[in-house]
Amino acid sequence: MQNSKPPRSVPKRRDSSLSHAYAVIMAGGSGTRFWPLSRRKRPKQLLEVFGRDTLLEQTAARIRSLIPPERTYVFTSELVRDEVARRLPGIPSQQIVAEPAARNTAPCIGLAAHEILRRDPEGILIVLPSDHVIRKPDAFRRALRSACQRASRQGVTVLLGLKPNQPHTGYGYVELGSREESPDGQEIYKVTQFTEKPSLAQAKEYVVSGRYLWNGGMFIWRASTVIRHFETCQPKMARALAKIASTGGVGSPNMLRRLYPRLEKISIDYALIEKIPDVFTVAVDMGWSDVGSWSVAYELNPKDRNGNVRPARSLCVDSHGNMIVSPDKFVVTVGVRDLAIIDTGDALLVSALGRSQDVGKAVKEMEEQGRDDLL
Amino acid sequence: MQNSKPPRSVPKRRDSSLSHAYAVIMAGGSGTRFWPLSRRKRPKQLLEVFGRDTLLEQTAARIRSLIPPERTYVFTSELVRDEVARRLPGIPSQQIVAEPAARNTAPCIGLAAHEILRRDPEGILIVLPSDHVIRKPDAFRRALRSACQRASRQGVTVLLGLKPNQPHTGYGYVELGSREESPDGQEIYKVTQFTEKPSLAQAKEYVVSGRYLWNGGMFIWRASTVIRHFETCQPKMARALAKIASTGGVGSPNMLRRLYPRLEKISIDYALIEKIPDVFTVAVDMGWSDVGSWSVAYELNPKDRNGNVRPARSLCVDSHGNMIVSPDKFVVTVGVRDLAIIDTGDALLVSALGRSQDVGKAVKEMEEQGRDDLL
Repeated sequence: MQNSKPPRSVPKRRDSSLSHAYAVIMAGGSGTRFWPLSRRKRPKQLLEVFGRDTLLEQTAARIRSLIPPERTYVFTSELVRDEVARRLPGIPSQQIVAEPAARNTAPCIGLAAHEILRRDPEGILIVLPSDHVIRKPDAFRRALRSACQRASRQGVTVLLGLKPNQPHTGYGYVELGSREESPDGQEIYKVTQFTEKPSLAQAKEYVVSGRYLWNGGMFIWRASTVIRHFETCQPKMARALAKIASTGGVGSPNMLRRLYPRLEKISIDYALIEKIPDVFTVAVDMGWSDVGSWSVAYELNPKDRNGNVRPARSLCVDSHGNMIVSPDKFVVTVGVRDLAIIDTGDALLVSALGRSQDVGKAVKEMEEQGRDDLL
Repeated sequence: MQNSKPPRSVPKRRDSSLSHAYAVIMAGGSGTRFWPLSRRKRPKQLLEVFGRDTLLEQTAARIRSLIPPERTYVFTSELVRDEVARRLPGIPSQQIVAEPAARNTAPCIGLAAHEILRRDPEGILIVLPSDHVIRKPDAFRRALRSACQRASRQGVTVLLGLKPNQPHTGYGYVELGSREESPDGQEIYKVTQFTEKPSLAQAKEYVVSGRYLWNGGMFIWRASTVIRHFETCQPKMARALAKIASTGGVGSPNMLRRLYPRLEKISIDYALIEKIPDVFTVAVDMGWSDVGSWSVAYELNPKDRNGNVRPARSLCVDSHGNMIVSPDKFVVTVGVRDLAIIDTGDALLVSALGRSQDVGKAVKEMEEQGRDDLL
């Protein structure tokens, strides 16, 4: 039976904090874990193997109903800027910024804060990485609304805290302090401590205790707060950022190209977050995954009746649980199980899916062998 | 220490039977077990994955010291004739014969017999398939000399009998009767019975009994004997072959193209060998292998210290016992074991090495799906 009633139109809640919110999508990353599909010129966030769209497009689509494209910025690298712009035609071109050099997240967020402050003295930055999957976008958006309200107060930093489902040793953890009142029922806590990449024993304790969340790198804070924290914690970088801003900021590519590469290469976590007071977290289960290896990508894709993710042009005989990517070539498998088979124009990877987190190591070895043509 | 003494030159034994011997190399076969490297246009005998040269070149090189190129014929298909000629530059072009249609081995051997009889009334055919490996070529050549002497007598057929090392159910077996005297100490027996593709139980009995050999398809007999047997056992084909011979034989491609495709498609074993009297065998351990699957090809190739057969442009991390063929593409493996990874321009195979005899089945399925472009 079809439900023919149209969905009731719910009047949007007025939310003044959201009207000052600016999305800052970080799309400058490069990684090796999805080699050979991912390359320097085609980073993970631009791959089409995590569902229908690229992770970048998914990130932009996820916030579109909260923040209009005119208030969305994307920071990426010069190598892929054109491709990013092609993927996100709604976002004004001058808001897709190519960093002249990879300096990790701190310089980039500082630059964004200046740009947004220039436009809107009450502007709030919503910093969003673009290399993860969020299976429950509604939960994400509810948490984000709540975070924006909380962060609209001067001096406060809010991060989205992810409820951990396994003792992952590769993430950062935040320890929860006292719980705050939240008018919309979201769980908001004061953060009392940060731990980067704990031991397995530590991570297990964290998960069992229920008092720790993963730091997913999503930060919400006023532009003015960001700049003040830079002045306190990173005075040298703060001065350089102010100079860039005074000479045109992101609107002055030549100046950017001269000054930006001299900034210290440091993450926002080390540069500010772990040093500043008044950090809060909205605890949320949003079905987050950082899609760290081919085995995670395998989980995200539809499968044939033998559990194979595979292209139409393939034939799998007695083969089960394989992840096959081959845009151009016909693939035949016989009697194989739980493999990642990734074929590209100039390189082929065959990995045990359970070992696919080690693909990065292989790529590192190729780098040492001077195989830059394949990276 | 190096042995600086030159090898002593041994005067060649005069052997009148060898001076009438003609090699007839059968290179018309096509198969699917080495897909995707082998194709209709590139059969197994033209692949370069069984050691330094192709199996065809190995076959020709193996007999060169006994039979000069002027007395060597190659029968192949029109599809690959040019490639065969390119691989065997020493053999006169008119002796590389393209069969206008695949008619199995009987018509081809009949045609060869007429051609050789025309040149030499005492001519002896040495019929040699070109799709196997012989690891002990000296043993092969000793057996061949002995077989030639025995076959120089009118009416006698000699086949090289391979000492079986496993109860293979895919081969033909010959049963040994009384042993003959042989001046050079070779084991020559009368053949009393033929069995094609026995059951496993039968094959096991055969191997244990020591009274059976594999029929490797290598036949030695006078041209006149071959033709007489055709007249007795296959009178219709004998007449057709005589007609082809009288109109120019292999030297008359147009006539060949008209008449040859009408000949019955039948193997020499069924057409003659199993029906005629006076069949003898020289029993020999020549390290023979028919190289029936990628796992056999794996055994024939040099390996790295982890037992991988792989190209220079590859990186194997925690990977063992794999057979990797990739003429063009860089290959990385991580944590995989005992796989055949065969990459070509338009198709990729990943198979468990132990299942590689099933590659033919997969190819058959592709044929049914109409993927002729890949066959």
